[in-house]
Amino acid sequence: MPDIGKLLSPKTVAVIGASSDRKGLRGRILEVMLSHPFAGTIYPVSRSAAKVQNRKAYSSVVALPEQADLAILIIPAEFVPEELERCGRNGVKAAVILSSGFAEEPGEAGLRMQAAIRATAQHYDMAVAGPNSEGFANIAAALCPTFSPAMDVTAGPLLPKRALGGEVSVISQSGGLGFAFFDRARGRNLKFRHIVTTGNEAFLETADFLDYMLDEGKTDVFLLLLEDIKTPAKFRNAADKALRLGKPLIVAKIGQTEPGRRAVASHTAALAGSHAAYRAIFQHHGVIEGHDFDEMIDLAAGFLSCGNKLPAGKRVAICTSSGGAGVWMADACVRAGLEVPELDAETRAAIDVHLPSYGTSQNPIDSTAQGVHKLGYAEFARLAAQSPLIDGVMTVVTARRSAFLEGDQPKLMALARDCHKPVFMWTYTLPSQRSVEILNETGYPLFINADSCARTMRAMADYRSLRERLLNSAAGDKPFAPDSPAARELLAASPDVLCEWQARPLLATYGIVGGEAGELARSADEAEVAARRFARPVALKVQSVDIPHKTEAGAVALHLNGADAVRAGYYGVMASARAYAPRALIDGVLVQPMAPGGREVILGVSRDPNWGPLLMVGLGGVLVEALGDVALSPVPIDDAAARAMLGRLKGAAILGPHRGAPAADTDALIELMVRLSHFAADHAEDVAEIDLNPVIVHAKGISLADALIIKSSRPAQERAAE
Amino acid sequence: MPDIGKLLSPKTVAVIGASSDRKGLRGRILEVMLSHPFAGTIYPVSRSAAKVQNRKAYSSVVALPEQADLAILIIPAEFVPEELERCGRNGVKAAVILSSGFAEEPGEAGLRMQAAIRATAQHYDMAVAGPNSEGFANIAAALCPTFSPAMDVTAGPLLPKRALGGEVSVISQSGGLGFAFFDRARGRNLKFRHIVTTGNEAFLETADFLDYMLDEGKTDVFLLLLEDIKTPAKFRNAADKALRLGKPLIVAKIGQTEPGRRAVASHTAALAGSHAAYRAIFQHHGVIEGHDFDEMIDLAAGFLSCGNKLPAGKRVAICTSSGGAGVWMADACVRAGLEVPELDAETRAAIDVHLPSYGTSQNPIDSTAQGVHKLGYAEFARLAAQSPLIDGVMTVVTARRSAFLEGDQPKLMALARDCHKPVFMWTYTLPSQRSVEILNETGYPLFINADSCARTMRAMADYRSLRERLLNSAAGDKPFAPDSPAARELLAASPDVLCEWQARPLLATYGIVGGEAGELARSADEAEVAARRFARPVALKVQSVDIPHKTEAGAVALHLNGADAVRAGYYGVMASARAYAPRALIDGVLVQPMAPGGREVILGVSRDPNWGPLLMVGLGGVLVEALGDVALSPVPIDDAAARAMLGRLKGAAILGPHRGAPAADTDALIELMVRLSHFAADHAEDVAEIDLNPVIVHAKGISLADALIIKSSRPAQERAAE
Repeated sequence: MPDIGKLLSPKTVAVIGASSDRKGLRGRILEVMLSHPFAGTIYPVSRSAAKVQNRKAYSSVVALPEQADLAILIIPAEFVPEELERCGRNGVKAAVILSSGFAEEPGEAGLRMQAAIRATAQHYDMAVAGPNSEGFANIAAALCPTFSPAMDVTAGPLLPKRALGGEVSVISQSGGLGFAFFDRARGRNLKFRHIVTTGNEAFLETADFLDYMLDEGKTDVFLLLLEDIKTPAKFRNAADKALRLGKPLIVAKIGQTEPGRRAVASHTAALAGSHAAYRAIFQHHGVIEGHDFDEMIDLAAGFLSCGNKLPAGKRVAICTSSGGAGVWMADACVRAGLEVPELDAETRAAIDVHLPSYGTSQNPIDSTAQGVHKLGYAEFARLAAQSPLIDGVMTVVTARRSAFLEGDQPKLMALARDCHKPVFMWTYTLPSQRSVEILNETGYPLFINADSCARTMRAMADYRSLRERLLNSAAGDKPFAPDSPAARELLAASPDVLCEWQARPLLATYGIVGGEAGELARSADEAEVAARRFARPVALKVQSVDIPHKTEAGAVALHLNGADAVRAGYYGVMASARAYAPRALIDGVLVQPMAPGGREVILGVSRDPNWGPLLMVGLGGVLVEALGDVALSPVPIDDAAARAMLGRLKGAAILGPHRGAPAADTDALIELMVRLSHFAADHAEDVAEIDLNPVIVHAKGISLADALIIKSSRPAQERAAE
Repeated sequence: MPDIGKLLSPKTVAVIGASSDRKGLRGRILEVMLSHPFAGTIYPVSRSAAKVQNRKAYSSVVALPEQADLAILIIPAEFVPEELERCGRNGVKAAVILSSGFAEEPGEAGLRMQAAIRATAQHYDMAVAGPNSEGFANIAAALCPTFSPAMDVTAGPLLPKRALGGEVSVISQSGGLGFAFFDRARGRNLKFRHIVTTGNEAFLETADFLDYMLDEGKTDVFLLLLEDIKTPAKFRNAADKALRLGKPLIVAKIGQTEPGRRAVASHTAALAGSHAAYRAIFQHHGVIEGHDFDEMIDLAAGFLSCGNKLPAGKRVAICTSSGGAGVWMADACVRAGLEVPELDAETRAAIDVHLPSYGTSQNPIDSTAQGVHKLGYAEFARLAAQSPLIDGVMTVVTARRSAFLEGDQPKLMALARDCHKPVFMWTYTLPSQRSVEILNETGYPLFINADSCARTMRAMADYRSLRERLLNSAAGDKPFAPDSPAARELLAASPDVLCEWQARPLLATYGIVGGEAGELARSADEAEVAARRFARPVALKVQSVDIPHKTEAGAVALHLNGADAVRAGYYGVMASARAYAPRALIDGVLVQPMAPGGREVILGVSRDPNWGPLLMVGLGGVLVEALGDVALSPVPIDDAAARAMLGRLKGAAILGPHRGAPAADTDALIELMVRLSHFAADHAEDVAEIDLNPVIVHAKGISLADALIIKSSRPAQERAAE
């Protein structure tokens, strides 16, 4: 991996294609660069002009008086590969290609040129960003090689006078949206470090920049905008590193919907991929998903202001001087999944002495205008934060006038210093600029959207809990020793589709068992014999690679009791199967004792083209499909991750005690999920799909009521031989 | 109802309790009033001062040189009833009570004082708002009797120089939040008409003000903030009038959640009530629910700008010059339930001629920066709007610089005039003030949040479709003639709880039938005889008022075939019932042929304390409860409303064709819902609860698989006698 430091923090920069025409992009970029006090040297390179924007211009990167660290290329696409080659040959160690007309164009030419760019970058060990990038900004260095109007010096200063604390970086595939984050955060007093727009990512990818910035160690919070991910493994590694370091990634993944994906595919060469799979990866790695600029900037502000004071749980106190605004915030908190518990008697007593008769300390704490006037915002927040029932405080303020906040500032400052729980401020009136400054410089973000404020607190609680889970990963799990060689052998010997009677022994090598395996009958006589042995009502299920959906085919008979019923059932199942799929290859009929009742669950594994095998869990029955209430995860997972998956199901409540029935054996289900995830991970190359549908979770233990495994169409040996 | 015009548009105003102390609320209010150019006369009334804020003050409302139309009371609570009485006696026709210390205080005193206020208002036919109000503002009259800092002249002008078109009014129970709408809409160029904060609503309610303003005819869009609703029928009437007039109500109902309700109950005397019931009422009357200031202001701006050009459907075109921003908006549109279809060939051809090679007309239409530079935003929007596949256009702009918009303004203006479909503008960069003005004065709202922009378009489409449905209400419905006298007679003769065997004949008076009624058996012999008559497998269900949940009690036996099974089933059901509820009064066991299969649905009616009987529909099975996927509606409803209810179910898809099974007979279900809704409406006083659970919807027709009716504990005659 070449040195991205040469790209982001160069001493000398050549702008190849610079122009004096400030109306065009080639002139704009130089104008923007020169408008900021970059301490290094900027060399315009122009084939036609001796002077560009009153600076001496050079005919070629070869003609420069000193070695350029970084070349900015803004020349027609067809000249880019040759120019990049010249840069490489002459020792330039980094390049940003702003030119368009590559893979985002129809046809093959763009893709070929991108391959050439990648080859040149690899050959000369150059850090090359783009093409079709909008450039970047290194805020600390005041280096802004971009034509984005957002980085124009007339748009405002690069750094706020007094920042909230900590630094935020943006990495975005889209140029316009990338700089829009910076632009729309103006007035929020955030300190940005880098804004990088990666364009078509012919060579350097989002994850490369992320990895570099994590190593650089200056960025505390990242805002990412993704259209696709070029190398999934790189992204997962970088995301994992970020989580371990405690540097939150706040990500907008665009192209989530069908028309969105269509647009991504059209305006770049990117394939957006299934959003459900992205979400699974994000949730697994603690990546925080955002959908809107302001929401994401709120998240960044929340994390920046809290540093390592993340909330230990989801319980908040609300302090307000306006009853209505307190209710508004309480609703927002509950909508965001936070809890607003009634406060303990001790805390209430400490607060009550400061309240007028029409105030209340229950939570929301309505101190009334009179109470706040007497004691100030900070003191009520401090009293609330002392409650052992509370993990964070939401303070409702009216920041239209700054005078009152000004007076409260010393106490606010002391609170920010001494209190170990996060305190957020939300204003329901339009805040004055001075109010924002007072709060920000005191260490508080000021939220103007109650829902976004609440979601930020919730995201911080989730992030902390996920991170702690990761750092303690797998500590309490039961050890288990799968017999992988046996699995591999069985898998190799199996047909492409394994019905239940074949899938069960294979799954058993990983301890995935449940209920009785049953017996394969090839005649009504065999079925009768098997059923007699079980001495209980049985189920008959046709076993055929050609009939994966047995129920639809009517090729299942349940609750059969007695020889006659079993024989009739056998003939019925076979007849239905033959009617449904006349040419089906039928192995026989599986005779199995009926599983006792329980909660039905669907477990499965499928391969995502980006992310490989994903474990899926959903609650059973026909409604699950209609509602799409499933959770996905990359594999393998540990107990805690499996438990978190179940927690993400909207209908998770039905695993608990229900209508007099005891809770389902969630531990057994979790063990099954963990084992299945290891099986899927270990045999990722050979298995395309696994369906355990349904799994019946009893009050104690589980039964597999069906199982299907589909092998990858091309076995691993064959692929390895290529 | 007294004349609210005297309150909102008085010529002479007495401020009772006015003070020179501008730091206190009593001084602030006069200061705010005097700072605006109100054309009428303002009289300070003070018991102690001869001059207040350099104006002659009067010792009493009696001492004024002329009759006051409106009295503003800001005196200690205990003096309010007496002062109001004095006002009434002296011909004052309206009063606003800003004083606090009434029902929002613990204890009975406040409630008693509010009763006195109500009595005085009624006695003198006075329009009385408050107490605990923050006053109001009549923007057109420049009359602002309030201490809200948002209405201070230093906060900015009351009216924008050039407004977006149309007028918006705010009615809010919370004072702070009410004026916050006005405050936070600054810079959006909306023209406000009234901002009224109603406080505790001892006499005048939100709905009274709404009704007045609808009659006044000056307000085009309403923003309401509700904590509760004092007189539900009044609210429903006003909401209905607003919908017929096409004046959208955009409502934030706060206190939706448990801590929110707790806070509402504590800071006012209000009971927030079930939010699901409120939502049902809102949906029924086309009330648009909002959760956030900015979202609600966006909705208001959207409706104001579109006038009667609401979208005829949910299909939008997206025009963008930034690929990434187009994807972002496409995702937002789909999230909001809009469709982004590929455009027709003719429209594409008309657009394609203006696109560079790397643009696309598919939709999102990515015209690229180059395309927009050449043709402008307006022309692409016009071309897109011409497509017959499109109901509205979302134009993605970058409004950081205004120069380009300035140049495009004549075409934008022509488009606003000529185009009959709504065109919205969303900027992904921070807009300059001038850009906002250019667009607003040309007739376009400028959205800065993509999700909110998309939700506004969706809300407008829904509003239009609901309104058209209302105006054509019940036109296509099958007529049906319920036998209400028979129902009333049966109901009177029934016990308090009607099991299925008793409920069925009652429901049948409204044509609510389905499947076979079955026979009540009081012995195994009777059961056997009944089962033999049906000559099919039967179900046995215990019938007991004391065992409403038969399945939990194990007092149901299904799929019984043959005499032995039926007899054994009878004994089993009775034994389970006795074990479950030893002292239960058991009518017998209902013997019924098994219903054929189908989709299970839950139908019910329950009484909401605010809104009376509400019809409930949900998809069947255990998951529905866990997921809460039900729709509610006030009764009665027509076919279209029933269909809309089903459409609101997240799992509605399972009523369609599914896994090879044909679609369920939705028409039969709708007919059942409509009839049940009429039954519930006609017998609202006598019926507390109805449960049809499950209703099995077949491919053709329906079966009621269980029915339970619970009568109101106190019969109508008894209540009438009070």
